[in-house]
Amino acid sequence: MSDYKTLREQAFEANMEIPKRGLAIYTWGNVSAFDKTAGVFAIKPSGVSYDDLSAEKMVVVDLEGKIVWGNLRPSSDTDTHLVLYKSFSGIGGVTHTHSPFAAAWAQAGKNVPVLGTTHADHAEEIPCTKFLTEEAVKKAYELETGNLIAETFKSLGKNPLHLQMILVAGHGPFTWGSDAAKSVYHAAVLEEICKMVYFTLQINPDNSVLPAYIINKHWERKHGSGAYYGQ
Amino acid sequence: MSDYKTLREQAFEANMEIPKRGLAIYTWGNVSAFDKTAGVFAIKPSGVSYDDLSAEKMVVVDLEGKIVWGNLRPSSDTDTHLVLYKSFSGIGGVTHTHSPFAAAWAQAGKNVPVLGTTHADHAEEIPCTKFLTEEAVKKAYELETGNLIAETFKSLGKNPLHLQMILVAGHGPFTWGSDAAKSVYHAAVLEEICKMVYFTLQINPDNSVLPAYIINKHWERKHGSGAYYGQ
Amino acid sequence: MSDYKTLREQAFEANMEIPKRGLAIYTWGNVSAFDKTAGVFAIKPSGVSYDDLSAEKMVVVDLEGKIVWGNLRPSSDTDTHLVLYKSFSGIGGVTHTHSPFAAAWAQAGKNVPVLGTTHADHAEEIPCTKFLTEEAVKKAYELETGNLIAETFKSLGKNPLHLQMILVAGHGPFTWGSDAAKSVYHAAVLEEICKMVYFTLQINPDNSVLPAYIINKHWERKHGSGAYYGQ
Amino acid sequence: MSDYKTLREQAFEANMEIPKRGLAIYTWGNVSAFDKTAGVFAIKPSGVSYDDLSAEKMVVVDLEGKIVWGNLRPSSDTDTHLVLYKSFSGIGGVTHTHSPFAAAWAQAGKNVPVLGTTHADHAEEIPCTKFLTEEAVKKAYELETGNLIAETFKSLGKNPLHLQMILVAGHGPFTWGSDAAKSVYHAAVLEEICKMVYFTLQINPDNSVLPAYIINKHWERKHGSGAYYGQ
Repeated sequence: MSDYKTLREQAFEANMEIPKRGLAIYTWGNVSAFDKTAGVFAIKPSGVSYDDLSAEKMVVVDLEGKIVWGNLRPSSDTDTHLVLYKSFSGIGGVTHTHSPFAAAWAQAGKNVPVLGTTHADHAEEIPCTKFLTEEAVKKAYELETGNLIAETFKSLGKNPLHLQMILVAGHGPFTWGSDAAKSVYHAAVLEEICKMVYFTLQINPDNSVLPAYIINKHWERKHGSGAYYGQ
Repeated sequence: MSDYKTLREQAFEANMEIPKRGLAIYTWGNVSAFDKTAGVFAIKPSGVSYDDLSAEKMVVVDLEGKIVWGNLRPSSDTDTHLVLYKSFSGIGGVTHTHSPFAAAWAQAGKNVPVLGTTHADHAEEIPCTKFLTEEAVKKAYELETGNLIAETFKSLGKNPLHLQMILVAGHGPFTWGSDAAKSVYHAAVLEEICKMVYFTLQINPDNSVLPAYIINKHWERKHGSGAYYGQ
Repeated sequence: MSDYKTLREQAFEANMEIPKRGLAIYTWGNVSAFDKTAGVFAIKPSGVSYDDLSAEKMVVVDLEGKIVWGNLRPSSDTDTHLVLYKSFSGIGGVTHTHSPFAAAWAQAGKNVPVLGTTHADHAEEIPCTKFLTEEAVKKAYELETGNLIAETFKSLGKNPLHLQMILVAGHGPFTWGSDAAKSVYHAAVLEEICKMVYFTLQINPDNSVLPAYIINKHWERKHGSGAYYGQ
Repeated sequence: MSDYKTLREQAFEANMEIPKRGLAIYTWGNVSAFDKTAGVFAIKPSGVSYDDLSAEKMVVVDLEGKIVWGNLRPSSDTDTHLVLYKSFSGIGGVTHTHSPFAAAWAQAGKNVPVLGTTHADHAEEIPCTKFLTEEAVKKAYELETGNLIAETFKSLGKNPLHLQMILVAGHGPFTWGSDAAKSVYHAAVLEEICKMVYFTLQINPDNSVLPAYIINKHWERKHGSGAYYGQ
């Protein structure tokens, strides 16, 4: 039987980016790393400080939510991660943080408009969900948070392999990517985007969005079929 | 006779979190650690820089304000700590900082509304006291600051074991907890909450509060009888 | 044949100032160092993290855009640098960052007015370009970004050896200088100026500009014929 | 003949607080240390980076502005320091920085009102001067900046041993104290005060000042005849 060492190490290293990048304090936030073939993901244990974290303390969970490796209780947000792995085929990592500017946009209940190329390099307009209903919160809060994200993407017609971040109203950001490292990269990018848009609208509240042809150009040069960014 | 070594070490370590977490500069701020059985608390000496602090320099004071251990003068805010230990049965640590966002909300004289789950995870709406009266300031400023906090909690019907933070109008934050470490944790959390609410209201000034059922859910999953956060 | 070691080292060291000064995260931003005699410049490779950078990884490009040294693909912004070296005779380094306050002013599409001596010490009012046209974006995006900067300077009658920074609308800052180190110095200065003007206009939205005689005095004491700043 | 070693070391150590406390970048800002008996002060050399600074590089100047020790050119702001030592009897150190919040209040041309006890612990309302006249700038800019500060204090009836900080309109903060270390302490305090007031007025633009009896209490407990703060 596997001890999921590589998967736990990937999850551990990606989790340690959260304090390094200033995306959450103390025990807040969590990253998971998904192994599609094995159908399991490694996730941060609940309420453990980043100072005390190690690959040994990661918890491995299957897609029914059963713990398959580890002695600690997994993150209280585990069911949200689980729904995202089930709903968004092709992703390999999920990150949740409480980074201040992204959390503020989530608390404000506002979509983040594309006002610059830093944003266009990485994402479209970033949606903010509605509040979960009282019924959903009472039924299965974390699982329904995952469903809310998946349904928001479906109703907006968004492709989760293209747009890899969302704000949950009144809560904070969830991001994902092809692996755990990419998901936490997107969390840091989202914070930077949210900070820049915040400053921009304070300077010029009537600011309009970037022209579509510039948005498209930046996306295409980094992610399109003729992409020429990177090695 | 005890030299209160453990208590002084707890107080020292909790005080050192203040500069580490960016909650005050130079000599500002103070944390105390309370030993209920002995009826004494260890507190930062007045006007000593964090760079020069040690467990040896902590001052131990009883609930009449008498120094029972140490050669230095205790924090000028000692009487405020003393009143909180007398008024809020069950707490084991008190922290006072000058962290900028919490101080700004205190200077603005505004309660901090619950706009997100980061806040709901830790607290209800955070009250800001009224200004102390001139009479109270002249009589016994620091002691009356403690009374003001206790009376504000009483008049609002708040439970100090549930809501563990307050803003003193025109002054700054006081927080507490089951021990010194928890009280300074609450000071860092309060600063983060105040920062996020500040940003949120700049983005969306007409923002309404989080639905009560989400606030309750976040509190309950972390602190309720069926709590499932942490180990 | 030269391996451009000194030039690559200058470019490498100037690039490392970007993360050190907090001007961009991950792989964002780029600095180049120009050798006028050889007609080539060394520039950051595209999409390489600052943690992984070395002088060995720099790419040397001539003024036709041909790689003359190095195995990696140069920065996707290489053509913008190239146009600036061709258009602004006498400059020896170019920097592009995504620093948050400068990016916000660029996203807001606003010129940065001279409100203080920190600004006057280094620059005049900092122009923000118009958006590139759709035609220019489709034709040759990065090269046309360089042309946009050069044309903006020409139409405003600005001297690029005097004013060494600009904001590209919806994108971010480009700065330059007599060498690579100076260009990244100007990028850090620009961020500081943009931050100060942002705060100033939040405090006093009706703020008027600094009197011309103070602006001139600060420029002259640092850069004029009778300059007496520095050694 | 003295080599002013102690004085230069005091000036050097106080200057190094500027980058450590984030009060200025690169070569900006300067601190001097005054020896009243000798009638000289040690000051930062002009345009030298903090990374390259040492006690050996400090410049010692007398009250006629003559260099009495050192090979480098003194700070371009030397004449402002000189006027302050001549005008404000009893001070032993002067600091000038470009810290962003203090610079922003100076650029906004606004006095900083006392909205909290952090401010009241250290100062009264902090005045912002008028702009220097064109005549004064042309005559002797730095010397007239010193005169402007001294005249502002005189016309407001302020005591420079009580209020030890000012904002020069469109320029930035000047602070002083009984020695060089105290003057740079006041520069850091001023930045913190300016940041808190900025945040406060964003939260509550109609904020009124702190009651006079609280302002007085905080000043008196720290600096009055019956002060009980510190050791």
